Amino acid sequence: MSADFSWERRVEFCETDAAGIAHFSSLVIYMEQAEHALLRSLGLSVAHSATAIPDDATPDDSTWRNVSWPRVRVECDFLSPAKFEDIVSINVFLSVLGKKSVTYQHRLFIGTRAIATGSMTSVCCKRENGTLVGREIPAEIRDALSTYQKS
Amino acid sequence: MSADFSWERRVEFCETDAAGIAHFSSLVIYMEQAEHALLRSLGLSVAHSATAIPDDATPDDSTWRNVSWPRVRVECDFLSPAKFEDIVSINVFLSVLGKKSVTYQHRLFIGTRAIATGSMTSVCCKRENGTLVGREIPAEIRDALSTYQKS
Amino acid sequence: MSADFSWERRVEFCETDAAGIAHFSSLVIYMEQAEHALLRSLGLSVAHSATAIPDDATPDDSTWRNVSWPRVRVECDFLSPAKFEDIVSINVFLSVLGKKSVTYQHRLFIGTRAIATGSMTSVCCKRENGTLVGREIPAEIRDALSTYQKS
Amino acid sequence: MSADFSWERRVEFCETDAAGIAHFSSLVIYMEQAEHALLRSLGLSVAHSATAIPDDATPDDSTWRNVSWPRVRVECDFLSPAKFEDIVSINVFLSVLGKKSVTYQHRLFIGTRAIATGSMTSVCCKRENGTLVGREIPAEIRDALSTYQKS
Repeated sequence: MSADFSWERRVEFCETDAAGIAHFSSLVIYMEQAEHALLRSLGLSVAHSATAIPDDATPDDSTWRNVSWPRVRVECDFLSPAKFEDIVSINVFLSVLGKKSVTYQHRLFIGTRAIATGSMTSVCCKRENGTLVGREIPAEIRDALSTYQKS
Repeated sequence: MSADFSWERRVEFCETDAAGIAHFSSLVIYMEQAEHALLRSLGLSVAHSATAIPDDATPDDSTWRNVSWPRVRVECDFLSPAKFEDIVSINVFLSVLGKKSVTYQHRLFIGTRAIATGSMTSVCCKRENGTLVGREIPAEIRDALSTYQKS
Repeated sequence: MSADFSWERRVEFCETDAAGIAHFSSLVIYMEQAEHALLRSLGLSVAHSATAIPDDATPDDSTWRNVSWPRVRVECDFLSPAKFEDIVSINVFLSVLGKKSVTYQHRLFIGTRAIATGSMTSVCCKRENGTLVGREIPAEIRDALSTYQKS
Repeated sequence: MSADFSWERRVEFCETDAAGIAHFSSLVIYMEQAEHALLRSLGLSVAHSATAIPDDATPDDSTWRNVSWPRVRVECDFLSPAKFEDIVSINVFLSVLGKKSVTYQHRLFIGTRAIATGSMTSVCCKRENGTLVGREIPAEIRDALSTYQKS
């Protein structure tokens, strides 16, 4: 049974609003940033899914690296407010690791107080002639992502 | 049968991301901005729910105006990308006008192309001693909001 | 003597901060958005400086259209706060229309109250092998921009 | 001779734009965030300038804590682009520690490559009847800030 990936950051002043709390869109953005941190922790990147061409690169590697992850669904429940300079912990795991898409589940805390829960779904794509086309998740990336999968 | 409230705005450059399209959080923010525009169109404001004290103000009016709308849930499906300088139309109606909460449904278009659908739920609150406490939606505000309710 | 270009927009809730006013970065962003609106008013775009290939396109047109405007300097003085739902007018003119760069001057108002003044300088570039290289401002674009030049 | 205060953060995806680089407003916001981090490192906060009432609190302490820092001027020169996932170091020192205002100088780097320089000026204020009024910088805060002053 794997542990969640966990990442944290501070609420910045520009992310608060006139109600005196973090604007709801800031929490949704934290969810995305935690995903990107999860990918980095696995040696991947959301912008190009391998950070370096391996030493034993083959002609297929350029194909293998042509991976991006457009977001197709977001949902978030807001439970409690976050304020300027609060430290927010974002816990993430994968609830779905499909053939062509991934669903992440997020739980946000300040200390032990839950402030939000949410999920985000991204589809695996490659860029062809300037547009994004769906593709299967490459095996190496699937293996890496399974680190944080919960069934 | 009421029509949707409709509002539009242009995608600004700072709202795009390195994938060359409007960042998903921008579309979620457009949904909120369209709600605020809907409230304005009814003479209300999300920050204080009446823009002016009526001529026939009574002592109860200050209570009546102590209304704010913290967001408790957001969901959004992204169907198609939006680019810099695209004009996005956001159509909004109320699917739930409860005793203490409201759920809005949003459909976003560029011309006739649907780019996103979503919903947002806000609860009616008053500010008491610096914190927000749930309250019933005042009758005058409920009447105004019913303009865009669909059953 | 040319008039300023003028553009206006409303302060959105997500642009306010916990001090109850528009965050200073929002005003800086309004300055950029007004520049983009000025360019649009002249049939140009900051992302590609002609919105359509003219009917009488020649082989040089692709070169002519390869124009972008990275920002090299911003300054802004903040005079008075802006609040949620205020309408901000941004007046813009060109104080410098150089061979390779442009400096815009901005004055922001709410009604007759000045809330900020600032300037921004952008250099004319073309994209070559994935990086930006300085270039002279094409004559057609210079002519268009001179509409809002003040000497 | 004091050292600069130094703080670093990663460029997030939502801060990039369609030109593939961090939007200029992101760098300006990093400058503000580094100031807030400098204040935190001294036990202060931009929102209320002491994080806790000291043990030997006197009736004057509530006055002493009524401090905020509206920004009155920002300037920034952009030297080189920052990309998604770059780590940006922001070095800050005070070039002016006046009776009622402070000017910070910022230098931003990615590794040894300078990407921006800038400055920001804030004035010391207290809140009176809902508006901000200028005040002298309290001696305790001045002492703390002098840690990063360069003459």
